[in-house]
Amino acid sequence: MKFPSPIAVQEVAQLIGAKLVGNVNGLVTGINEIHKVEPGDLVFVDHPKYYDKCIQSAATFIIINKETSFPEEKALLIVDQPFEAYQTIVRRFRPFEPAAKMISDSAVIGEGTWIAPNVFIGNHVTIGKNCRLFPNVTILDHCMIGDNVVIQAGTVIGSDAFYYNTKKDREVWYKRMESGGRVVIEDDVEIGAGCTIDRGVSHDTLIGRGTKMDNLIQVGHDTVIGKNCLFASQVGIAGATTIEDGVVLWGQVGVSKTLTIGANAVVMAQSGVPFSLEGGKMYFGSPVEDAVTKKRELIWIKRIPEIWEKLKALK
Amino acid sequence: MKFPSPIAVQEVAQLIGAKLVGNVNGLVTGINEIHKVEPGDLVFVDHPKYYDKCIQSAATFIIINKETSFPEEKALLIVDQPFEAYQTIVRRFRPFEPAAKMISDSAVIGEGTWIAPNVFIGNHVTIGKNCRLFPNVTILDHCMIGDNVVIQAGTVIGSDAFYYNTKKDREVWYKRMESGGRVVIEDDVEIGAGCTIDRGVSHDTLIGRGTKMDNLIQVGHDTVIGKNCLFASQVGIAGATTIEDGVVLWGQVGVSKTLTIGANAVVMAQSGVPFSLEGGKMYFGSPVEDAVTKKRELIWIKRIPEIWEKLKALK
Amino acid sequence: MKFPSPIAVQEVAQLIGAKLVGNVNGLVTGINEIHKVEPGDLVFVDHPKYYDKCIQSAATFIIINKETSFPEEKALLIVDQPFEAYQTIVRRFRPFEPAAKMISDSAVIGEGTWIAPNVFIGNHVTIGKNCRLFPNVTILDHCMIGDNVVIQAGTVIGSDAFYYNTKKDREVWYKRMESGGRVVIEDDVEIGAGCTIDRGVSHDTLIGRGTKMDNLIQVGHDTVIGKNCLFASQVGIAGATTIEDGVVLWGQVGVSKTLTIGANAVVMAQSGVPFSLEGGKMYFGSPVEDAVTKKRELIWIKRIPEIWEKLKALK
Repeated sequence: MKFPSPIAVQEVAQLIGAKLVGNVNGLVTGINEIHKVEPGDLVFVDHPKYYDKCIQSAATFIIINKETSFPEEKALLIVDQPFEAYQTIVRRFRPFEPAAKMISDSAVIGEGTWIAPNVFIGNHVTIGKNCRLFPNVTILDHCMIGDNVVIQAGTVIGSDAFYYNTKKDREVWYKRMESGGRVVIEDDVEIGAGCTIDRGVSHDTLIGRGTKMDNLIQVGHDTVIGKNCLFASQVGIAGATTIEDGVVLWGQVGVSKTLTIGANAVVMAQSGVPFSLEGGKMYFGSPVEDAVTKKRELIWIKRIPEIWEKLKALK
Repeated sequence: MKFPSPIAVQEVAQLIGAKLVGNVNGLVTGINEIHKVEPGDLVFVDHPKYYDKCIQSAATFIIINKETSFPEEKALLIVDQPFEAYQTIVRRFRPFEPAAKMISDSAVIGEGTWIAPNVFIGNHVTIGKNCRLFPNVTILDHCMIGDNVVIQAGTVIGSDAFYYNTKKDREVWYKRMESGGRVVIEDDVEIGAGCTIDRGVSHDTLIGRGTKMDNLIQVGHDTVIGKNCLFASQVGIAGATTIEDGVVLWGQVGVSKTLTIGANAVVMAQSGVPFSLEGGKMYFGSPVEDAVTKKRELIWIKRIPEIWEKLKALK
Repeated sequence: MKFPSPIAVQEVAQLIGAKLVGNVNGLVTGINEIHKVEPGDLVFVDHPKYYDKCIQSAATFIIINKETSFPEEKALLIVDQPFEAYQTIVRRFRPFEPAAKMISDSAVIGEGTWIAPNVFIGNHVTIGKNCRLFPNVTILDHCMIGDNVVIQAGTVIGSDAFYYNTKKDREVWYKRMESGGRVVIEDDVEIGAGCTIDRGVSHDTLIGRGTKMDNLIQVGHDTVIGKNCLFASQVGIAGATTIEDGVVLWGQVGVSKTLTIGANAVVMAQSGVPFSLEGGKMYFGSPVEDAVTKKRELIWIKRIPEIWEKLKALK
């Protein structure tokens, strides 16, 4: 999540009540997750195990719960509860604005776009030209939709990320991270009925030009989907995953988080993808394998009784 | 389902046109399924195979289609069609009330709760404080929602149970049982977008404090979910199942009906749970097994060609 | 898709700018897919591989991109882009009519039917008597619903087919085929919450009398479902498939396209059906097999370590 314009790090430190050490005169451009940060960004860390990784990341500003050594061009913002500091920053720069109308006055809708009755369009939403939004669609705050996009009935764009801070020593174990990101949908994308596309936590969820999705599909927060992908019904993709251009996922495929599926890979129905896949190949199974290998394996399994008999004959 | 207040059994007998024998002066407290009944409850049975089980259950009052022996503190309500008698009782004590407004006048909504445009709230619904109900959410009659509950867009709370009386000798084989139960959601629960939580048939569907659910999740009728559970997207849980505290279900897991998953069990993605699971362990596969056992099995399968070659060499 | 009344083939040729050869005086009754066409119908073909199959099909009129030989009772409509010609015809005879109201003036709704607040009913929809449509349901244009039908909240009937013309040499690979078909739901059908039932492309999607579906179920375009079927939650059925009477699909079953499941087959939870199944049997697995065979196979897999040990002992 980038701020509307860069902010003095001293102002951020004051907002979250942090002790500021190091490069105290820098400008903060945004806040992001460890694997997405760029110079100028803030990142937060509250576990010594990750201190080094955060301090060595591309981020310039580190919200941390202990003073420690760091490169001189960076700054630490020291607070007791880095997670709470993160929440405070997101709430400040992307506050929850309770909508009171079906179509927000701050939404911008392009020429030739048909908005069916009963569609909800949140604050600061942008929708391009010649789109079709069918009934009971929900487009939540800040989402951006390109031209010629079709969204079938009942689909939700921009639901909050399923991303929690976990501490099992309190009564409520899971605390939701505020979602500061958006969903950005490029031109010529078509999304089926009853889908749910979560917004990013600190990055954006992106759907590339010309990608088509069937019904009842789940796309997690911060996931980036390439151009000209084709996803059949009931596919589920977890958060912070990358699906490159031209990928085909058949029905009920499940894809885990923070992995990459290479360009033009094809994953057969009901497969489960727990790790990254090379592009240009066909896959099958749960956990997924090369489709030919997997199908050969299914044939081998059928031979176990024959092996058993042969073994008996040998004895 | 408990009645608003206890009813004379004679009044119930009259309502359903039953012959009443045994303890004719008792008070009926409610109606429930055989595995949930308590003293004072009604239960119904229409197949001789289940007569004994029903008569020996905790229920005090048995709607039955044949006079038979029974403990003297109980009563039989004898009718030709016990299922129809059940329907009559539910319709009497929890009648269908067609809503005409988006938010029922009989709904009670707590302070600080945001109800987005286009949310439907049925009759006799109670919603606590500081909740967020996103657009196109549907909360049906009699459901109860605690404080600090978040429900993402498009989710349905309190749809009718998928529970049918089956007789294949009539033109329409399946007749829906009336759903007399509710959905009860405790404090600090968060439910994703596009989920469906069915009401109970004769008990309630319960979601315990602090439990968090991702998008497109199905929870069946009369299912009881503990505190601090975490369910990833596209999980499906059938009816009358018990999920104890702290259970984690990863994406696309399916859980069958009337079983129990013990506290703090973790079930890996795409697994299928057809029987009860002990708590505190990790599971994988369809049908599910101990995760380590299952992963070892996947490695064994890979060795079949090697076994084949060894066998050939031996001959 | 049948036209409201038969059209002179010359008029169709003019509409799409086609050169007409053969039976130039015929009447066209409709347009359909190759495996569904009847005499009097149009079909289109743009790949030499399928020329013969189309010309030999039951269709009387063939939209084609090359002049070739054909039976004398038929006619060819020769155009450069048969797919575009198909789109033009569907748009002409079933034009997109942007709705502006929640319940279209052209919809016909039977006596005793309850339409909840926030239900969308499109143009030319017909709904029978004594139905219940729960909140946030969407019924799109031209769909037909019988008597005593129950549709739970959030369900979408008549979303566009997920059916694309694919050409990987253009910037946007997939172009949606216009959906000219409808969803037709017979009497006594009940559909759960959050389901999505796509309309047919050139045929109709049909759900037979007395069939009951649980929540979050997907039914693809042109699929035909028989009477008294029972589908558990999160079942997904692809396009142009036939499910005969009395079929039971348990939770999360996936069914591929253009196949047939025979009457009274039962498919166990999480199974995947990639080919046609004979009726009257029980099935399990992904890919699906006879349930007894599959369960025996699972036991055989458990014996691999034992086989390994025996083999070691033999050496």
